[in-house]
Amino acid sequence: MKEKIRVGLIGYGRAGQAVARVLGKADGIALRWIVKQKPASEINQATAPAPIHDPAGLQSGALFDSLPVDVVVDFSTAAAIRKYGREAAARKIAIITAISKYPETSKALLVRLAQETAVMNSPNITLGINYLLVASQLLQHIAPFTDIEVVEEHFRDKAERSGTALRIAQTLGLDESKVNSIRVGGIVGRHEVIFGFPFQTVRLVHDSISREAFGTGALFALRKLYQRPPGLYTYESLLREAMKEALQGDQDG
Amino acid sequence: MKEKIRVGLIGYGRAGQAVARVLGKADGIALRWIVKQKPASEINQATAPAPIHDPAGLQSGALFDSLPVDVVVDFSTAAAIRKYGREAAARKIAIITAISKYPETSKALLVRLAQETAVMNSPNITLGINYLLVASQLLQHIAPFTDIEVVEEHFRDKAERSGTALRIAQTLGLDESKVNSIRVGGIVGRHEVIFGFPFQTVRLVHDSISREAFGTGALFALRKLYQRPPGLYTYESLLREAMKEALQGDQDG
Amino acid sequence: MKEKIRVGLIGYGRAGQAVARVLGKADGIALRWIVKQKPASEINQATAPAPIHDPAGLQSGALFDSLPVDVVVDFSTAAAIRKYGREAAARKIAIITAISKYPETSKALLVRLAQETAVMNSPNITLGINYLLVASQLLQHIAPFTDIEVVEEHFRDKAERSGTALRIAQTLGLDESKVNSIRVGGIVGRHEVIFGFPFQTVRLVHDSISREAFGTGALFALRKLYQRPPGLYTYESLLREAMKEALQGDQDG
Amino acid sequence: MKEKIRVGLIGYGRAGQAVARVLGKADGIALRWIVKQKPASEINQATAPAPIHDPAGLQSGALFDSLPVDVVVDFSTAAAIRKYGREAAARKIAIITAISKYPETSKALLVRLAQETAVMNSPNITLGINYLLVASQLLQHIAPFTDIEVVEEHFRDKAERSGTALRIAQTLGLDESKVNSIRVGGIVGRHEVIFGFPFQTVRLVHDSISREAFGTGALFALRKLYQRPPGLYTYESLLREAMKEALQGDQDG
Repeated sequence: MKEKIRVGLIGYGRAGQAVARVLGKADGIALRWIVKQKPASEINQATAPAPIHDPAGLQSGALFDSLPVDVVVDFSTAAAIRKYGREAAARKIAIITAISKYPETSKALLVRLAQETAVMNSPNITLGINYLLVASQLLQHIAPFTDIEVVEEHFRDKAERSGTALRIAQTLGLDESKVNSIRVGGIVGRHEVIFGFPFQTVRLVHDSISREAFGTGALFALRKLYQRPPGLYTYESLLREAMKEALQGDQDG
Repeated sequence: MKEKIRVGLIGYGRAGQAVARVLGKADGIALRWIVKQKPASEINQATAPAPIHDPAGLQSGALFDSLPVDVVVDFSTAAAIRKYGREAAARKIAIITAISKYPETSKALLVRLAQETAVMNSPNITLGINYLLVASQLLQHIAPFTDIEVVEEHFRDKAERSGTALRIAQTLGLDESKVNSIRVGGIVGRHEVIFGFPFQTVRLVHDSISREAFGTGALFALRKLYQRPPGLYTYESLLREAMKEALQGDQDG
Repeated sequence: MKEKIRVGLIGYGRAGQAVARVLGKADGIALRWIVKQKPASEINQATAPAPIHDPAGLQSGALFDSLPVDVVVDFSTAAAIRKYGREAAARKIAIITAISKYPETSKALLVRLAQETAVMNSPNITLGINYLLVASQLLQHIAPFTDIEVVEEHFRDKAERSGTALRIAQTLGLDESKVNSIRVGGIVGRHEVIFGFPFQTVRLVHDSISREAFGTGALFALRKLYQRPPGLYTYESLLREAMKEALQGDQDG
Repeated sequence: MKEKIRVGLIGYGRAGQAVARVLGKADGIALRWIVKQKPASEINQATAPAPIHDPAGLQSGALFDSLPVDVVVDFSTAAAIRKYGREAAARKIAIITAISKYPETSKALLVRLAQETAVMNSPNITLGINYLLVASQLLQHIAPFTDIEVVEEHFRDKAERSGTALRIAQTLGLDESKVNSIRVGGIVGRHEVIFGFPFQTVRLVHDSISREAFGTGALFALRKLYQRPPGLYTYESLLREAMKEALQGDQDG
């Protein structure tokens, strides 16, 4: 019988809770614990998909020893990695962190940790969005003569431009002016990459329905990262690899 | 200086004329002749992007000798391959044919010709549509748990289902009932593949603007097929190869 | 100072709770009470936007007397109208019910109640969907020569066809075969009406984000129904009236 | 038997030719003549849907007398109205002009002509686009709390912003920054008005397929303007009127 991948989740805000709901029900995954910053008493232990611990055990490594895991998934804050990083890496626990903006010192820490264990950091951990990013690059490679623009739509109060849209533009070598931002009502999140050929148009569109999409994305990443050699991985690199497998498989078949 | 690829076009109906307009202006392409079934007097020689010949010279091979080409592109009818196939293959001229429905005997002929030269047959030679097909397979490989449906929209009078949509469904292992056909007004052609994740949706959409899209598609194919070893190629196989290059290049880079 | 419209909500399931959240925060609305079928102890009184009562006070009329309201909004079950209908109508309280499938006897009851008070029953109380319905009729009137098809997309497990899509088709005189149903992943609800002109296409598209949309819809309806003469109203009739006002106003202006 | 509406077309460039093709085939329409600025010898008389005349007969009024019409449709240039306007108005011939940018003196002329005959000037004479404009106003009236943005997509080389999109924005009282312009490939023309509600989204989308859409639009306008009293009409006013009829009819029925 195949062993389950044992997972610890750090961060239990709105995104963390959505991820916990998905990991708690996923095939082949044992969600062993959740670490929450604020006192655990504030939230409902009974409805959580795994026992909730406070952060103290992370820094000492005690939690890793009492309830061993194969992968930690971090949806908390930029500060957390400095507390648990070394203890996790020393135990060869793979690290997946969805933190958007690490300070330079933490980025350097990730590089050091990656010498001991598999580390992946990605600001957007959604599977569909990362697919959009790589699939767009493939189409641009095949049809370099196309014009490309990006449209991102979000709820009225999202002040800044979508980091994902900017990342797509950057990856495709587009000027930032090619990112069109729509802010209306309660749209959860929509990204569209439009490829204009002279006589045809191709559109790649991603619609977010809810935060649980981060869970589906984390699931893909942790299955791919499980039992990997040490190193710094990106979501895109995992996706590219899976695509190469698919292209290879088809050719052989 | 890089030599131009010399091309002969067989078939000058509505699709053929659109392809001729694109090939006639394309960089690196010399469109040397066009063969038209009906008497050449019927059409305007002056506005054609290459001299128009009648089919007699094809069967004898005389046209291939007097105006040598590297590739023939066939947008005529299923019968034509029996007239020019052997003469082209004997001269190592690559053959790209966009005929949808060859009888079994002609398919067998293509296999024999492919022992001597590079041969590609594809019922839909549009670059965007073929990209949709392969990109859909990649996403299905990465996210096999998604539900997939196909929507195809065409002008009111298109009686049959879109062969392209059925091909996408078949490639993805979908039941034919997952192809939804809309027939309204004058829509040139729209194909959408919808991937339903639990908490997100990805859509790949292709809109045809005009028949000239076949020209863009033929151009990609003939550039890829030029100077290839003999063999039977498909549009998808050329695209997959280009994608693998892209994925490889990115990894190295 | 303008007086607030006093509202009582009947039904506190998933739709009812979403409606309560919207009504509880709406300008000019005083949500005075919520009636819940199941014992009130089961749910969290503290977080509800109004005091929760059990159904006993409805049938006796006691609740209407102790906490008078101008409008009742019913998101419960088909049986409820027989309990509160007569007591509400006798007090000239307007009735808005979002129940989809009333038995014939209850429909007859609604007609009788409408002789005493304003009554509106609509299976889909969403503002956007009802707009789609009326706006589609207007376009069909202006351009009767167009072909029309409907696409409705919902989550995988929605077994039946969308009642809303069938209603749109019926209103436009379309055969049921013109309704195309997509069932994938977790799509909350999407309806699209496609008008095919010979040389252009018009699409009216509605995307549901969450059940709170019922609240926005109920809000529009109760503001329009407040202080109306007795009668049987439909959502469409209220919308048509508002549109006529808009068209009139523009002409005068 | 119902008499045909007799029409004269002024202007036979790319738009004019497309309009002529539609009017030439339309039920109840007799396209009696076409006036072309450039020498008629340049174009193919045989394939035109009506005899082509040069502009001389317009200014003298001779053409109106020898081949009387009920409506003139003008797809030529801003200068033309000064040549044919007075002669047409004196004969009570309705005038539909699709010229985008008249100088002030010509606008004043239109006002004077409108005292004698029915005059309509509209920069975009497409039925679908004008529907989008009015239907958007209706939705804004019903749901004034929604956020609205406009997306317009056109071919790469369209330099300026879409006048239609700016007109939509202006009519809805939106800042110009709410118009998002996409310029890619060969997109003929796409306009989308997005209404963001808190919990739902409504989109009105118009796709142009070809210039013949101007013909469908002219057809609607001339049927509505035929035998009207003198006055200055707009496309929107005709549409509003038709919508009011539709709303009235539904209520009575």
